[in-house]
Amino acid sequence: MTELFSLPLSVLNVGVRSFAESVAAVGADVTQIEWQPPAGGDVDAGHALARLINEPRVEDANRSALAAFLNAQPVLEDVQPARDLIPALSAGRLLLHAGPPVAWGEMCGPMQGAIIGAILFEAWAKTPEDAAKLAASGQIAFAPCHHHGAVGPMAGIVSPSMPLWSVGNRAGSNRAFSGLNEGLGKVLRFGAYNAEVLERLHWMSAVLAPTLSKAVKATGGIELKPLMAQSLHMGDELHNRNTAASSLLLKTLLPGLLESGAPLDAIAAIARFIAGNDHFFLNVSMAACKAMLDAAHGVRHSSLVTAMARNGVTFGIRVSGTGNAWFTAPAPLVDGLYFPGYGPADAAPDLGDSAITETAGLGGFAMAAAPAIVQFVGGTPADAEANTRRMLRIALGVNPAFTIPALGFAGGPVGIDARKVIDRNISPVINTGIAHRTAGIGQVGAGISHAPVACFVAAIEALAQTISGPATPPTE
Amino acid sequence: MTELFSLPLSVLNVGVRSFAESVAAVGADVTQIEWQPPAGGDVDAGHALARLINEPRVEDANRSALAAFLNAQPVLEDVQPARDLIPALSAGRLLLHAGPPVAWGEMCGPMQGAIIGAILFEAWAKTPEDAAKLAASGQIAFAPCHHHGAVGPMAGIVSPSMPLWSVGNRAGSNRAFSGLNEGLGKVLRFGAYNAEVLERLHWMSAVLAPTLSKAVKATGGIELKPLMAQSLHMGDELHNRNTAASSLLLKTLLPGLLESGAPLDAIAAIARFIAGNDHFFLNVSMAACKAMLDAAHGVRHSSLVTAMARNGVTFGIRVSGTGNAWFTAPAPLVDGLYFPGYGPADAAPDLGDSAITETAGLGGFAMAAAPAIVQFVGGTPADAEANTRRMLRIALGVNPAFTIPALGFAGGPVGIDARKVIDRNISPVINTGIAHRTAGIGQVGAGISHAPVACFVAAIEALAQTISGPATPPTE
Repeated sequence: MTELFSLPLSVLNVGVRSFAESVAAVGADVTQIEWQPPAGGDVDAGHALARLINEPRVEDANRSALAAFLNAQPVLEDVQPARDLIPALSAGRLLLHAGPPVAWGEMCGPMQGAIIGAILFEAWAKTPEDAAKLAASGQIAFAPCHHHGAVGPMAGIVSPSMPLWSVGNRAGSNRAFSGLNEGLGKVLRFGAYNAEVLERLHWMSAVLAPTLSKAVKATGGIELKPLMAQSLHMGDELHNRNTAASSLLLKTLLPGLLESGAPLDAIAAIARFIAGNDHFFLNVSMAACKAMLDAAHGVRHSSLVTAMARNGVTFGIRVSGTGNAWFTAPAPLVDGLYFPGYGPADAAPDLGDSAITETAGLGGFAMAAAPAIVQFVGGTPADAEANTRRMLRIALGVNPAFTIPALGFAGGPVGIDARKVIDRNISPVINTGIAHRTAGIGQVGAGISHAPVACFVAAIEALAQTISGPATPPTE
Repeated sequence: MTELFSLPLSVLNVGVRSFAESVAAVGADVTQIEWQPPAGGDVDAGHALARLINEPRVEDANRSALAAFLNAQPVLEDVQPARDLIPALSAGRLLLHAGPPVAWGEMCGPMQGAIIGAILFEAWAKTPEDAAKLAASGQIAFAPCHHHGAVGPMAGIVSPSMPLWSVGNRAGSNRAFSGLNEGLGKVLRFGAYNAEVLERLHWMSAVLAPTLSKAVKATGGIELKPLMAQSLHMGDELHNRNTAASSLLLKTLLPGLLESGAPLDAIAAIARFIAGNDHFFLNVSMAACKAMLDAAHGVRHSSLVTAMARNGVTFGIRVSGTGNAWFTAPAPLVDGLYFPGYGPADAAPDLGDSAITETAGLGGFAMAAAPAIVQFVGGTPADAEANTRRMLRIALGVNPAFTIPALGFAGGPVGIDARKVIDRNISPVINTGIAHRTAGIGQVGAGISHAPVACFVAAIEALAQTISGPATPPTE
């Protein structure tokens, strides 16, 4: 010991930074290692995690689940009214919404606004006041999109007459659905429901959707992974930036649109609508992600996260090995850039099923591919790359189908391992839009949110129970 | 001195690396500074350069020239037959070609092949043999595209009936022209002239061009700088990668195409042709660069390079302050990736006016914006970024209109200063296609070439003469 103290000290400090600062203050050489106790020190979560880490059944299950995800081949196959794709919607007055389950009285402003809009669109009521009364009356059922194979951005409302993209997984038998993107500004998904919004929805179901259906079918189905891979090489992250993918989709659909038999002025209007909306591909991206993740869902013991979704009140996740249970926590606020005239006080909490893209390794996970996204969600290109590198630490693997030029064409992170989120205290990062908290206004900005760690703690505790009976902590 | 040698040595070595290695070999601390004598040690060039460096007249001229370049507003205005845009082409049998002047007998194989194809296209001869005889007979005049306000990729042949894009500089009165891109593979610009090539050229002039003319006019003119800036944020460098720009151009033209009055099957064929060619925007990019650079040409005493062009035999540059003189050197070989079945022995030397994009700060100069380009021209994304950073060292400035996400949205290099090329021994880097050396075959690869330093030495010596009379070296 005496000898030790006579030598120059070279200190490695693990964890609390202030210890390192004390050492540095007296002039010694100190290296700080970032570390925090798993689950932020939650002892029960730590015990649950200890059962799952290096557990062969979990490792095997995760390999199976990840393989199913990576092998999935999402193909854009059709556009049809929701009632023809989702049986429950043809049976009665049902509306689907984003995120985990939520009752009318608990919903955030933009979701209530979008439901009012959907009721007016379906002509179930004539005025917004009557629509709100009907929604509150119990005569309309509400269910998450995710319960019916669908995903919806922001409020994510799907009503029976709305057209949906249909994406089939040709490596399996599952299909996933998502609506047609309306554009930015005053749109239903951000809770706006004025005449302009409803008129656009009617045009979309009467003109856009049937023509798109013909154009999609004329292609024989559009393989989405190659198109998405190319878009990642063109600066998209396929959640908040779909500029390249929207152009590539339009190019792919164009011959079929021109030969659809629709009148030339309708084709011109459709081409203008798609060409004018750089987010047009978002919903296709979401359905593709849902189709790939559903292929990996339901693998016993797997800790792969298969959905992250928000309803503006709660944030919920699903995990492959825990079936259809939701693990929820209060929806976080979004740290972002606001449109002129708006600020954080106007914002609804985190909203929408679009975090399915991050769940599939895109969006915030693929930000390194999309440096220009920071002009929309804030930060610098270096932050964008750092986000992707940080997400690699909670991923099950990398996706050879989705490579990122800025990382030397390495695959992007893929497959959130709920264990790693807890073990490493790294929360999934999400690029997202920000809705006004009040119904009827619309989008007010875009930014970044972080999935609440509490969802992952709850999921890990439930998953641990599937491994070895009730989760009684070992005696200490 | 005695004291110096008793202290630990810390050595800075400038220039020849082997001195540093000797110092390092005996264990001393040594830092190597890269440096070479200007102009590679060419004494005459060094004297000429010494007159121009820090010369107020050159500095002022360069400020003016760069301002004219940066202020230029290239707008895509029309598509018309070459004879209607370039008076000399309506007067007699004249063909334009890429690069500095070259006689028929000296031309490389692909340029001769493209001229044979152009003669067949114009119906000035009926067989390739007769076309070659006619070309050799002296009855056809040849001139560089650059002498008539035009630029052509690879062989760059322009004949009177070929349609040209017309780009006007709305901040001045100059216009620039370039042909319509034929796609990849067997195409005239790579020296192919079979029936497929000629049939495509006839369709392009009879169907594509008049419809495009209407579509362009319907837009009121397309401002090219914003479109090019957006493409740089989508992974293009606008020379060998125009994937995003081609999509954006198609989107912009689409409403006008649909309302052009052309039959639907013609519109569908046009949409397929454009959508199927990721290089479609290349020629527009070239004309935009030419329009911006011509605005900066002819500024007395300026050392700004306003053209780099190759005819497959010689590489030539023009400098703003030396008027229309070409400064030439043998065309270099291209270091690149070859299509299956081909190799360096098949390659024609560096060819085409497309280096106008590098002259304007795009292409090889903007590679940091286009990491995916390395899959086409070789290297790694890190090489791509290093090329852009190296080109900043020979640039007059950065272009605030063309920012690069990977550089934290800093402007890309712009305005090659011929003085810096000599002073720093840094040769401009060019992304380029590779033509087969034999007429009639076409493209065999793509890669990177470097402008020969000898061109810049000759230009600097000529420019020095404009500063202070005959270039007699100072007495030593």
